[in-house]
Amino acid sequence: MTQLEQARNGVVTNEAKQAALKEGMTPNYIRSAIADGTVIITKNKKHKSIEPLAIGKGLRTKVNANIGTSQDRVSLKEEIEKLHAAVNAGADAVMDLSTGGQVDEIRKAIIKESPVPIGTVPIYQAALEAVRKGKSLVELEADEIFEIIEKHAEDGVDFITVHCGVTQRSIEHIRKEGRLMGVVSRGGALTAEWMNFNKKENPLFENYDRLLHIAKKYDMVLSLGDGLRPGCLADATDRGQVEELVTLGELAQMAVSEGVQVMIEGPGHVPINQIEANILLQKRLCHGAPFYVLGPLVTDIAPGYDHITSAIGGAIAGAAGADFICYVTPSEHLRLPTIEDVKEGVIASKIAAHAADIAKGVKGAMNRDIQMAKARKLLNWDEQIRLSVDPEKARLLRESSPPSDKEVCTMCGSLCAIKLSGKGSL
Amino acid sequence: MTQLEQARNGVVTNEAKQAALKEGMTPNYIRSAIADGTVIITKNKKHKSIEPLAIGKGLRTKVNANIGTSQDRVSLKEEIEKLHAAVNAGADAVMDLSTGGQVDEIRKAIIKESPVPIGTVPIYQAALEAVRKGKSLVELEADEIFEIIEKHAEDGVDFITVHCGVTQRSIEHIRKEGRLMGVVSRGGALTAEWMNFNKKENPLFENYDRLLHIAKKYDMVLSLGDGLRPGCLADATDRGQVEELVTLGELAQMAVSEGVQVMIEGPGHVPINQIEANILLQKRLCHGAPFYVLGPLVTDIAPGYDHITSAIGGAIAGAAGADFICYVTPSEHLRLPTIEDVKEGVIASKIAAHAADIAKGVKGAMNRDIQMAKARKLLNWDEQIRLSVDPEKARLLRESSPPSDKEVCTMCGSLCAIKLSGKGSL
Repeated sequence: MTQLEQARNGVVTNEAKQAALKEGMTPNYIRSAIADGTVIITKNKKHKSIEPLAIGKGLRTKVNANIGTSQDRVSLKEEIEKLHAAVNAGADAVMDLSTGGQVDEIRKAIIKESPVPIGTVPIYQAALEAVRKGKSLVELEADEIFEIIEKHAEDGVDFITVHCGVTQRSIEHIRKEGRLMGVVSRGGALTAEWMNFNKKENPLFENYDRLLHIAKKYDMVLSLGDGLRPGCLADATDRGQVEELVTLGELAQMAVSEGVQVMIEGPGHVPINQIEANILLQKRLCHGAPFYVLGPLVTDIAPGYDHITSAIGGAIAGAAGADFICYVTPSEHLRLPTIEDVKEGVIASKIAAHAADIAKGVKGAMNRDIQMAKARKLLNWDEQIRLSVDPEKARLLRESSPPSDKEVCTMCGSLCAIKLSGKGSL
Repeated sequence: MTQLEQARNGVVTNEAKQAALKEGMTPNYIRSAIADGTVIITKNKKHKSIEPLAIGKGLRTKVNANIGTSQDRVSLKEEIEKLHAAVNAGADAVMDLSTGGQVDEIRKAIIKESPVPIGTVPIYQAALEAVRKGKSLVELEADEIFEIIEKHAEDGVDFITVHCGVTQRSIEHIRKEGRLMGVVSRGGALTAEWMNFNKKENPLFENYDRLLHIAKKYDMVLSLGDGLRPGCLADATDRGQVEELVTLGELAQMAVSEGVQVMIEGPGHVPINQIEANILLQKRLCHGAPFYVLGPLVTDIAPGYDHITSAIGGAIAGAAGADFICYVTPSEHLRLPTIEDVKEGVIASKIAAHAADIAKGVKGAMNRDIQMAKARKLLNWDEQIRLSVDPEKARLLRESSPPSDKEVCTMCGSLCAIKLSGKGSL
């Protein structure tokens, strides 16, 4: 039985207990939230090496890091280093989006090596294999897609992105509206091109039962992808995006009623003033299913700094109720990220997630900030560095500019406000 | 006459006309907003080399960069380089907060060299000179402070921070409440220590008329500093901070009625869920005076990344109505910023300000994002780089990882969604 089925039967599983401990919640809260479909546990039955990760309502906002090879850049060693860089920086989950080299081997290696849950987007591999067989992407058979999904599940993938909501109807909305950027999700674009060429409905939508069957067998979480997410601010919250979300809500409800754990993916590129409405819509239309956002990026004009544009959007989304933030690196829109990019991306998203947790009142979220404030008041530098999100960088910056008075720093010197107003006098 | 007096008399000054042109607003909008006290023009009558900068309601959110020497690090050359780095990265104004070396010479050099308005915090120099004369800070005479303020005005400083709202009453609120971090503003701490030692009221509060007189003579903007701003999330929006803001509101009203241009400084460290309320409070209590925020930082635990914590807070504050964002660099809380820090800090704040402008509907703010979306759709890389907030970095990242197909990038290769869905087909 899946975690959801057991929760619904009143069983507090070991996984729910472990998750409860990590979140500081009661095991019964976790159980009942899983039963409601408002919390998921991402752990494929075949994936033995990881601790279960709970994502959803009332819990700490989680961060995912995307890694993986591309056609232009293939190195398993480098991807394993990225995995560790992501986990060391605090990533709660990692997606292997490899599209170059021996993707089966790469995936298996990452799953084996990872201490955190692993997600994938099987349609990338399907597309890749079609091309390698000398076929066009649009000649893919539905069976080929499902076989790859089953292979990923069998390998122990904990969650997969499936673009089930890209339907003839939602694409028609996009055509009628006249989007600036069309479809910018790789999976969404592949699906739309396939549908357009074959004049057929999306096979993952038409054969959704088959998908549920595979997911249920392995207790693999379905992450219902927003294949029609906006690729620029001007396209945000348009009819195609919202129509797809309505469909995803229905599909999520079907999954939950079948005992399959599910989350919903969200945008993308969204102006600040539309973010809260996007979260509210998702929560309402999908009956509180966990929401996994990609950013959102709050401006389109900052390639090289999209870890910052997405930290802004992610923090606002998280504060409004998003549960899971997919990082964006400084290399977004420009190149495959490097190991250093992975670290920077994870830290920016961790900052966003943590700030969001304080805002939405996640239990215990303020504790570390209070400890930091106390350490600052006491001019206790070792403790300040220890409590930092990246102690190594904090230490490096401070030590690169040694103050003549060890109690202060080179910004204020003897005019240090903390020192002036006395350690604790005011 | 000051800009405010002329605006009130119905005169559209040359400065108002220039500002209107830059903002894409009518000259009469600028004039009437200056008359209301909801827009200011920061330009000391003696500062000839700069273009006037308008800040306030309905206008593009502006960004300030703090530079200046400290006791531990004194190099005029480096500070001039920081000035240029800040302006090149897009800073609209620069504050010289020098507290090391020959601060008079440094200030004069920065004023002369700068194409943008310059702000200062005169009390830093007053404190510094007291120490250099072998006196304790608390032995400062009120006259010494006013003489330095007049000297800054005479040198052409366009706006000064004055901590007039640190009163015996507001300090008493902080004592009663029991703040975690006390007073963290340097000017606020100096003022509070002086008041505590001398058992007197704040001289800049008691002799506010004298301050107005100087400001009026030079049309130097008063930036009413929040000396009691919170230094950690736990202290945000407390009674001391709010009491001070009430006082600043009264002082702002007095300034406006005397024809003196004024803006209000704001926090600091504020959880996301309290930012909007802080902006609303300031706007209401200060009758719409322009609001100049320092960040705010949305978590305390990220030294080394406070350009990101403050970009999150600044974007939310700007979207809610803040008019002017003071940057924070990665070195905040750790050391005096380097030239590279200055650039990173300005760009992070520019991103926040721009995202805020889109959210609050500033005229024309979305144009560049729409151009970027069109360039992306056409896979026009030169145009994407040209439109970037930092073209140099965008180009560097892309060129460091050359794709085999020049139309795409090394992230997606042939699976590029834009390419898949056709240039403009969907």
